[in-house]
Amino acid sequence: MHPNPNLVTADNGPLLELERRILDSMTTIERWFRLQWQDHTPPFYGSVDLRNAGFKLAPVDMNLYPGGFNNLSEEMLPSAVQAAQSAIEHLCPDARNLLLIPERHTRNIYYLTNVARLARILRATGLEVRIGSLSVEVTSPTTISLPGNDRLVVEPLVRTGNRIGVAGFDPCAVLLNNDLSAGIPDILRGLEDQILLPPLHAGWAVRRKSQHFAAYDEVAQEFAQLLKIDSWTVNPYFARCGQINFHERTGEECLASNVDMLLSRIRAKYKEYGINEQPFVIVKADAGTYGMGIMTVRDVADVRELNRKQRNKMAVVKEGLEVNEVIIQEGVPTYEKVEDAVAEPVVYMVDRYVVGGFYRVNKDRGIDENLNAPGMHFVPLAFAGSCNLPDCSAQPGTAATNRFYSYGVIARLALLAASLELERTGHLVTRAPDAAPATAAVGN
Amino acid sequence: MHPNPNLVTADNGPLLELERRILDSMTTIERWFRLQWQDHTPPFYGSVDLRNAGFKLAPVDMNLYPGGFNNLSEEMLPSAVQAAQSAIEHLCPDARNLLLIPERHTRNIYYLTNVARLARILRATGLEVRIGSLSVEVTSPTTISLPGNDRLVVEPLVRTGNRIGVAGFDPCAVLLNNDLSAGIPDILRGLEDQILLPPLHAGWAVRRKSQHFAAYDEVAQEFAQLLKIDSWTVNPYFARCGQINFHERTGEECLASNVDMLLSRIRAKYKEYGINEQPFVIVKADAGTYGMGIMTVRDVADVRELNRKQRNKMAVVKEGLEVNEVIIQEGVPTYEKVEDAVAEPVVYMVDRYVVGGFYRVNKDRGIDENLNAPGMHFVPLAFAGSCNLPDCSAQPGTAATNRFYSYGVIARLALLAASLELERTGHLVTRAPDAAPATAAVGN
Repeated sequence: MHPNPNLVTADNGPLLELERRILDSMTTIERWFRLQWQDHTPPFYGSVDLRNAGFKLAPVDMNLYPGGFNNLSEEMLPSAVQAAQSAIEHLCPDARNLLLIPERHTRNIYYLTNVARLARILRATGLEVRIGSLSVEVTSPTTISLPGNDRLVVEPLVRTGNRIGVAGFDPCAVLLNNDLSAGIPDILRGLEDQILLPPLHAGWAVRRKSQHFAAYDEVAQEFAQLLKIDSWTVNPYFARCGQINFHERTGEECLASNVDMLLSRIRAKYKEYGINEQPFVIVKADAGTYGMGIMTVRDVADVRELNRKQRNKMAVVKEGLEVNEVIIQEGVPTYEKVEDAVAEPVVYMVDRYVVGGFYRVNKDRGIDENLNAPGMHFVPLAFAGSCNLPDCSAQPGTAATNRFYSYGVIARLALLAASLELERTGHLVTRAPDAAPATAAVGN
Repeated sequence: MHPNPNLVTADNGPLLELERRILDSMTTIERWFRLQWQDHTPPFYGSVDLRNAGFKLAPVDMNLYPGGFNNLSEEMLPSAVQAAQSAIEHLCPDARNLLLIPERHTRNIYYLTNVARLARILRATGLEVRIGSLSVEVTSPTTISLPGNDRLVVEPLVRTGNRIGVAGFDPCAVLLNNDLSAGIPDILRGLEDQILLPPLHAGWAVRRKSQHFAAYDEVAQEFAQLLKIDSWTVNPYFARCGQINFHERTGEECLASNVDMLLSRIRAKYKEYGINEQPFVIVKADAGTYGMGIMTVRDVADVRELNRKQRNKMAVVKEGLEVNEVIIQEGVPTYEKVEDAVAEPVVYMVDRYVVGGFYRVNKDRGIDENLNAPGMHFVPLAFAGSCNLPDCSAQPGTAATNRFYSYGVIARLALLAASLELERTGHLVTRAPDAAPATAAVGN
């Protein structure tokens, strides 16, 4: 694929102001991040979905188990290795062996290519890497052939006392690339003298998007003060409903009133900035991922009249878990296009560094819809080149370089929010299983 | 310039074995470096001249004030920014302002482009950067135009009590890009609460190549044990004469006997490995740089019959300093060629990371001569891409990728040696000026 696809941004309005502000403040911003990382430890890795509306540039999702390293351009890998070296040095400098635990599904070739690439990056930092599976189907070391003569060996996990590994391999560090949507497996609980990255409470068994965006509120507020901008230009409004049952149609009043409230607030902001757009919100599961259980709502009447099909769609996410908690998030239209299809940038980070990114492109979707859906494809970008070294003398927006620097900044705001979030939710995982949050399936 | 020039390596002999050993040991090597950097702090930056003889791959010089950042490819700059962020985080995490002190000569446009690029990299880490000159000619802020609409503002240094800066700018960190060949200026002595990078004793006023290669001996020894190889394959023999006067023709016996001894040792190794080459040594000033005061010696008779011209050439280096101390170093022929001209790789590092490199090419010189001489030019390479992420499945040597990984490893051995060297020579700069080593011109 071409490394620099024809990127279209339709708007010449206030975003260029924001980009110019970000570029002019580069030194201030980078120092601010440097000081923040002295107080807060970034997660080992993460990816952020951004939406660029021209008048607004904001994160809409933050993944702590990024599964698309295969979508990064080859040119960016050295940067990823360097960042991983830094992470290992901070988190487990003596480490010799690392166990990588991927998602359970072993048949998705794209995902497996991601795992292989992640293993390659980690090996280049001086780690012996083996791959241990939570899948009950993996009962002996299994070799999987991948495109390009690559191959992956996946082994059954072995628990010995309070340590986890694979046969003949006792790792000092365990890296999860499994988001624990199905709950925290007993085999991962109570590990001793082994560092688990990210920690268990970063998984969807415990994590809530609303907790992330509450932390992001604070980060965005501080950043906005630093740059003397309206924090709304980098921060989507959100609300939460904690006791929904789509099948039994309970809790819908909470949903409707919050949708109404958010649409009003967005309408007011659109009026303030003279934006001629129809406000919309996105309703999605507060825990979970994979683009399931997501709905675009343009009118409060839409959520009062959910038909059976819509309710069924919203009620269940990955691994068949029931949705009882939802986040209602201000919709940010994306004006980015790649080859005439709607696109949104996804930024990858390891440690505190941007290591690349790509566009998620979906020709079947509109600018106000979730793109993480059937029909999507990915266009890699040599992202970091421009993400940490903008050309400050160039016009903002005209050069992709400068646009991508802004993307890297906003993505790192979300990464910082994730750090705060994880600091605050660490106590949740020490609860006994039956006291875990409502949607968490426990054990497995 | 083409990013991947036609690289010719003439030899298919033992070096491929060494490269294969290095590739196969990547995980071991990277972990070993990680552990070394826990005990030793790398210099802020450095560059290493390598020579690749096919049968041997070794550093021949290590510069702690690299002046060729302009020769790195644009693609490598993000990697340099990331490394500089890491260095700042380790050395002065709170830093807001950094003062960059370049070489005195303000008219060399290539060097000034290096300074501008270095400043750009540093600014991208979140530092306010101003440039202060030691030159007496700079009496007020001076703007210098550079190619590509770039410009550089150089300001006179201001000393206020025990702090240094430029007008209206009080830096917490001072980065020298001046190798102090002319001695340690009084204005840099006795700074308090300002971190000076690299420290004063890294300058040629104090530093000796022989101290560096003594430390490199130890590093190469340990590395050779790790890889179970002969340390000679990565380490040039050397000796030192400390009391030479080329004008008065004193100390020449020391030179002759050491040349003789080294040639014998090299001859023995060549015999051991079946290498049909004429051994040679390089005689060069033990302190100093810029390719001055360097001589290729193939026969001990050569140094017994130095004519007036040769003696004059050897007697003086940069800034007119007299040479009394020389290092005699095993000559490593370079079999690298770029477009039919003799070439040697130069590897750039910031903090513990390889951030790029280039070939120094000199069509007027032979494979056993110093290339840092009139007629040289530089060919940048997208170096780090291959320097931290080799393709272990490919044949060594066939893919430039894998060759460059080896170069990055050997260069980092020299960087580690520089760390040891600086740990051991720190006491030298605290001496009173008149007790400083013989060649050090003091004050200025």
